[in-house]
Amino acid sequence: MTPPSDEERPIAALLVPDILDLLEEAPDSVSAETEEMHAADLADVAAAMPRERVSALLAALSPERAADVVEYMDEELRAEVLGAMPAPQAAKLVAQMTPDDRADVLEELEEEHAEDILASIPFEARGETERLLQYEPDTAGGLMTTEFVSVPENMTVEAALANVRAFARAGRREAIYTLYTTDTQGRMQGVLSLKELLAAPEGSRIADIAWEEIVSVRPTADREEVARITSKYDLVAVPVVDDEGRLLGVVTVDDVIDAIVEESTEDVQRLGAMQPLEEPYFQVGFFSIARKRLGWLTLLFAAEMLTGTIMRRHEETLNAVTALVFFLPLIISSGGNSGSQSATLITRGLAVGDVRLRDAMRVLWRECAQGIVLGAFLGVIGLVRAVTWGNDMDVSSVIALTLFAVVLTGTLLGAMLPLLFTRIGVDPAIASSPFVASLVDIAGIAIYFAIASQLLTIT
Amino acid sequence: MTPPSDEERPIAALLVPDILDLLEEAPDSVSAETEEMHAADLADVAAAMPRERVSALLAALSPERAADVVEYMDEELRAEVLGAMPAPQAAKLVAQMTPDDRADVLEELEEEHAEDILASIPFEARGETERLLQYEPDTAGGLMTTEFVSVPENMTVEAALANVRAFARAGRREAIYTLYTTDTQGRMQGVLSLKELLAAPEGSRIADIAWEEIVSVRPTADREEVARITSKYDLVAVPVVDDEGRLLGVVTVDDVIDAIVEESTEDVQRLGAMQPLEEPYFQVGFFSIARKRLGWLTLLFAAEMLTGTIMRRHEETLNAVTALVFFLPLIISSGGNSGSQSATLITRGLAVGDVRLRDAMRVLWRECAQGIVLGAFLGVIGLVRAVTWGNDMDVSSVIALTLFAVVLTGTLLGAMLPLLFTRIGVDPAIASSPFVASLVDIAGIAIYFAIASQLLTIT
Repeated sequence: MTPPSDEERPIAALLVPDILDLLEEAPDSVSAETEEMHAADLADVAAAMPRERVSALLAALSPERAADVVEYMDEELRAEVLGAMPAPQAAKLVAQMTPDDRADVLEELEEEHAEDILASIPFEARGETERLLQYEPDTAGGLMTTEFVSVPENMTVEAALANVRAFARAGRREAIYTLYTTDTQGRMQGVLSLKELLAAPEGSRIADIAWEEIVSVRPTADREEVARITSKYDLVAVPVVDDEGRLLGVVTVDDVIDAIVEESTEDVQRLGAMQPLEEPYFQVGFFSIARKRLGWLTLLFAAEMLTGTIMRRHEETLNAVTALVFFLPLIISSGGNSGSQSATLITRGLAVGDVRLRDAMRVLWRECAQGIVLGAFLGVIGLVRAVTWGNDMDVSSVIALTLFAVVLTGTLLGAMLPLLFTRIGVDPAIASSPFVASLVDIAGIAIYFAIASQLLTIT
Repeated sequence: MTPPSDEERPIAALLVPDILDLLEEAPDSVSAETEEMHAADLADVAAAMPRERVSALLAALSPERAADVVEYMDEELRAEVLGAMPAPQAAKLVAQMTPDDRADVLEELEEEHAEDILASIPFEARGETERLLQYEPDTAGGLMTTEFVSVPENMTVEAALANVRAFARAGRREAIYTLYTTDTQGRMQGVLSLKELLAAPEGSRIADIAWEEIVSVRPTADREEVARITSKYDLVAVPVVDDEGRLLGVVTVDDVIDAIVEESTEDVQRLGAMQPLEEPYFQVGFFSIARKRLGWLTLLFAAEMLTGTIMRRHEETLNAVTALVFFLPLIISSGGNSGSQSATLITRGLAVGDVRLRDAMRVLWRECAQGIVLGAFLGVIGLVRAVTWGNDMDVSSVIALTLFAVVLTGTLLGAMLPLLFTRIGVDPAIASSPFVASLVDIAGIAIYFAIASQLLTIT
């Protein structure tokens, strides 16, 4: 993705001095003056303000509006702001948030403080929040909101629409664009979009227009599954049901988008041989990043030591034909590059569902053929380079053959590893470029000297 | 992302034999039998059917339903199916599609056939489609639909709701969850969500509840910008306006999700030193993939040849101290790995907006410090390894110092390149692991021999 240019920087931040002045001189007018601003922009303003003034800004807004602004803040900022607030004040704010965001926020706070806040919010919201907190944050249960519209099947369209309006007027700000029908046990029977409700002829009943085949997920479903389903069926909300088919909540599309972006970030970081950061770059502590990098670096370093072991075993060959050394980095990097191409293609294919485990043989054949084509091409360039550099035909053939074999090996390893990791239930993204490159380095050096000792007469 | 398990495979595909039988024996009943299926599932069925039967399936459905199914098909499949259909038959289907999907489909077909189809669809839809076809597919204009609800400001809430219902009943299947107010020149004045409309008290006017500060994009805006805005403001639709502020269309959230997934795929592939594929792995031709890979492979190969040139210049050192060769792959891979970590972190940070160009100095300081910590750590391990392998203190220090210097160089290069590319307007994702690794290979070898010739006395 091309990053946004600096001019695109939220203009909201330019308002910071004005809003700070207002807070100082006429705090009562802040609410009216910022009324037309999007809550996301006010959250930008808060992020650009001195931290100690943020709670003054929130206090100057209505609790409902303040809750909106907090929902749009970065995790780090809102944890800091709510963490510094006395529990009863934070509770007033948190009580106004949507159930899913409320649970998210409490999860980000220190446990004791979170419990104090939870104890101070109204009874009903507390129970709801406690239920949501039971689910892992990266699952459908952790993403869902419990504010959705459910209507009885025998209701008329007009009555259902009146229901939706009452729901909207009650300030329930969440899933409203999809309606669900449930039986007396709360089991989901049907689904219809608000669009379908509005399009229905007057006087028809919900049962006539609702769909009975419903796409739904379990609360334990991974957020990636929720994302795939949302994208496949073009949904604005995915219902979450328990084993008995009871409707527990709904995951809305805005949370799905956040999940997709976060998952992609994790994948990209894994492909770069990093443990995923989980937070924006500048918000992660220096030593926390260093630790996440060192793990992989050390592991790859240890593996890479094998290259030395192999070379020592072939010290004689090396001493006899120094020319072989000159091609060493070229050969191993070519294997690593073709390997990381294959690994990237297959890993991404698996992530978005274009490639499946049962396609394994098809993938391997295809990549094998790719390896042959790419290897032959680079082998020929290598041959030309070796000859023009004044090497004899023996050494030059060793280099050309090795290039061919190493590129083929790299391609096959790069394609196989993501499939293998998937098979054993490990995220295939750890078959990253550096990981594949290290394995190919080792294999490449072994191949190089095997071919050299076959073709060259070492005296 | 963890890929879906094979069991998750669309059950829809299991229906293929039954549906093929039905098409053979009672084609008239296919429509009723599949009525409750989601169009996306029917598209899965079509994908799993023999290609020559797909048009029979589409013919058995109502044109509206068939259009829905085609909208959910893979690009490749629908291009094939519509490409094989006579233009008038295809036109009947295409005319039922939403304007944005209609334009997308026509863009995928051969030009002549697309023009024949366009000539056979109703006049109004044709003009609309021709307008949409002017925009690049990856821009807001290319993603937007022209089916949206706009209402005059002085309308009452009830009248506006009646408008929305009429729109929904007319079978306009697109952006309905956000309403726009425009002046007599078609310039956008305000925006309100359907939720806000439903929540509004009876008798109020649109002007009272619409928001005047509107988030919008130009038709030329990149789809990434549309994605960032959608995600930031939790939108279900982004309005597209021209330079005069006239409302041209609306990008809906389902298209935004597709754009986000495609952009991430492109980024991941670039990071793997691939030109992006643009289509699912199995749908891209074999030689098309090979070509996309060869470009980068050859470029990196050519760059990597420099390593040989540098080593030849130090042939004497190499001959005198063969031990240096044993550490060569270890040293250059350590530099490459730390470099690709930095490149990945900064590239992704730039893509999601966590890192901006003006943070460049902050990034460089941070990564410089990271490089020092990581380099020192690996340097110490390298020293221990060299000593235990029986090298004297001189050679061991060369290795330790080189490791430190190379890891630091890798980290700095990895951090700088994405920023540099962004600065000159190039996608930073091309600063991929293999690309950074190759540069670090060259720098690493130069550093290695520079340090060696300083510290070792070559006789």
